[in-house]
Amino acid sequence: MAEIGATGNGGVNRQALTPEDTRGRQVLLEWAAKRGYTAAIDPIGNLFIRRPGAHPELSPVMTGSHLDSQPTGGRFDGVYGVLAGFEVLETLDDYAVVTERPMELVVWMNEEGSRFPPPTMGSAVASGAMPLERALATLDRNGVTIGDALAVQIEQLPQLQRRPLGTKGHVYIEAHIEQGPLLEAENCDIGIVKGIQGLHAYQVEVTGAEAHAGTTPMRHRKDALVAATTLIARIRSEIADPEDILRFTVGRFEVAPGASSTVPGKVTFIIDLRHPDPDHLLRTGERILQFCSGEVEHCAVSAKILLQSTPVIFNDQVVAMVREAAERRQFKHMSMISGATHDAKYMAEHTPTAMIFVPSEKGISHNEAENTRDEDLAAGTQILCDAMLAVMSAME
Amino acid sequence: MAEIGATGNGGVNRQALTPEDTRGRQVLLEWAAKRGYTAAIDPIGNLFIRRPGAHPELSPVMTGSHLDSQPTGGRFDGVYGVLAGFEVLETLDDYAVVTERPMELVVWMNEEGSRFPPPTMGSAVASGAMPLERALATLDRNGVTIGDALAVQIEQLPQLQRRPLGTKGHVYIEAHIEQGPLLEAENCDIGIVKGIQGLHAYQVEVTGAEAHAGTTPMRHRKDALVAATTLIARIRSEIADPEDILRFTVGRFEVAPGASSTVPGKVTFIIDLRHPDPDHLLRTGERILQFCSGEVEHCAVSAKILLQSTPVIFNDQVVAMVREAAERRQFKHMSMISGATHDAKYMAEHTPTAMIFVPSEKGISHNEAENTRDEDLAAGTQILCDAMLAVMSAME
Repeated sequence: MAEIGATGNGGVNRQALTPEDTRGRQVLLEWAAKRGYTAAIDPIGNLFIRRPGAHPELSPVMTGSHLDSQPTGGRFDGVYGVLAGFEVLETLDDYAVVTERPMELVVWMNEEGSRFPPPTMGSAVASGAMPLERALATLDRNGVTIGDALAVQIEQLPQLQRRPLGTKGHVYIEAHIEQGPLLEAENCDIGIVKGIQGLHAYQVEVTGAEAHAGTTPMRHRKDALVAATTLIARIRSEIADPEDILRFTVGRFEVAPGASSTVPGKVTFIIDLRHPDPDHLLRTGERILQFCSGEVEHCAVSAKILLQSTPVIFNDQVVAMVREAAERRQFKHMSMISGATHDAKYMAEHTPTAMIFVPSEKGISHNEAENTRDEDLAAGTQILCDAMLAVMSAME
Repeated sequence: MAEIGATGNGGVNRQALTPEDTRGRQVLLEWAAKRGYTAAIDPIGNLFIRRPGAHPELSPVMTGSHLDSQPTGGRFDGVYGVLAGFEVLETLDDYAVVTERPMELVVWMNEEGSRFPPPTMGSAVASGAMPLERALATLDRNGVTIGDALAVQIEQLPQLQRRPLGTKGHVYIEAHIEQGPLLEAENCDIGIVKGIQGLHAYQVEVTGAEAHAGTTPMRHRKDALVAATTLIARIRSEIADPEDILRFTVGRFEVAPGASSTVPGKVTFIIDLRHPDPDHLLRTGERILQFCSGEVEHCAVSAKILLQSTPVIFNDQVVAMVREAAERRQFKHMSMISGATHDAKYMAEHTPTAMIFVPSEKGISHNEAENTRDEDLAAGTQILCDAMLAVMSAME
């Protein structure tokens, strides 16, 4: 998979619904076809690969993650959970295990949200948290909609059955790299993930007036870049968290018209805000919306909410069974809250859910240098397999 | 011309060597062919349209400007000087005037520098101020070189003769909109342009480390956007000019990878710096280069010089003849220094040069709302015609 969209620096660029993303899905579907698994796609482009159980009428034990990446992403973020899940299915075949329930591997559409903001879009739509029509109308930088890009992809996956929206399962367990430094720092093999911190995303628009860089006196300018940078500095300073738990990021920042001799007339940027405490997150979000209204440095400022995802607590019973699996295998493990958001967040709304983390070298992620050791990848996959089998009958 | 690349908001997007730029040149060449003028292109894509004189061996009286625009440019910037010059040639035909010297209209390649920085590239190369190879290798945002884009354009202008680099003329007079508020404020019809303020352009690169927006503590980040905005705020404050003569602009500012949930690893921006006093400009430029080196907010900062164009003083005698023409026609006029740079800057290095300005409504330019009244456009064209005829024999 790391060869598809390889950047040449050890990373991948396999953004949602690009030819690289389609190629990744084709490869996975070829493997699935060899094993005789059925494959289907829902209206927002989530992919479902099913290994049958003895009782096809029972809801499946599910796992999954995503194949799409950041523009300069690593080789493990998302793809690890997909391949770990597929490895579980294949292992059960290799040992001729017949399970009571079907087992289903989901490849979520557009988890990263880098080409089409916001992130975790496929699971949000499947869970009813985002309207399908709004998601399909989302534009990339070149004005291409998800609807159009998805139609192109589906044409190239002709073997797929169609299935309606909706993903309720018996249990959902997602394996993922930690993307942070804690497991490595504690010398742990496995993270038992008890929940996900909340994520708000705000899109801010700063409108000034385009003007000639050589002729327009500084005092007459309405420079949207100056206003935007002043605004961001002000917000950073006002919401600064001495405990360093709050995460405030501006990763997407676009300046128009973007010509060196024209004073910028418009800046659009996205604020990514995270905190494990829902009240703290809401309060901070409200303050940010207040800062992002009215006028800054003679420019008009407005903001809209792209995403307000509250912190999530996973199912106690599933979390406990993941922990038991780690204990039985004698892996060193620790409990943790996920700093990154994941599709498991939306699954948790209707299906008993948990996650398994494996260590990220130096905590590096969303970076081509992302790495996890082979033995850690294998350990996480083993725990995923054990836990999926354990929940098969134990959970009601 | 305003229909070619029309933005729908009264402006144009006709950036250098785009299909729209090529279409603009085709239309002009069709008009030139109808009048029987010869047309040639030089290796950097400057276009020369020549009306013959009685003595073809004499150097031509030249005028010109540019057809390329900013991404959201107005209908007058550049195109006015080209159409005014063409109107002069046609008027001489209409009145069957035979001039001693040939008259030549130049359409400079890439005056704006918005697609391919820096600006005034065609005249810089023609005058020997920039090596041809360096200009041809300049990349746009999509990695297309000027060399390749120019080859595509030339294929679509098959009627053109080729001519070598070099543009020395008897005299060069360029008509242009003021792009500033002074003529309107003084209620003048004509600006007698005595020179051009200096322009430095610096490309600054800020390198941090990409990281996950949800998992990376603020204290561990190397956020290139935070560093770049801190740096710009620091420079603005340090070089602030209480007289408001210095112009400092960051118009191009690019954030990589540009994904909302990734801490930016790199920011690249261009500083556009202008001042009429060459010493002041140099001193300020040196201070900026000092600020843009070393480390800012845990990110590495480096800068390179894109352009260091010193202020230019035009030829006294040509300026005086423009003024005399304005006086004879009883237009209200004033002397001024151009805040914007122009191709006349490079022509002035080897050819006696002057410029004629007409008023810009509210001083607005590099903006789709750019406007100049019909009578002002006509007045400027009349003065251009009078001055070009006056210098024909008067100048030695």
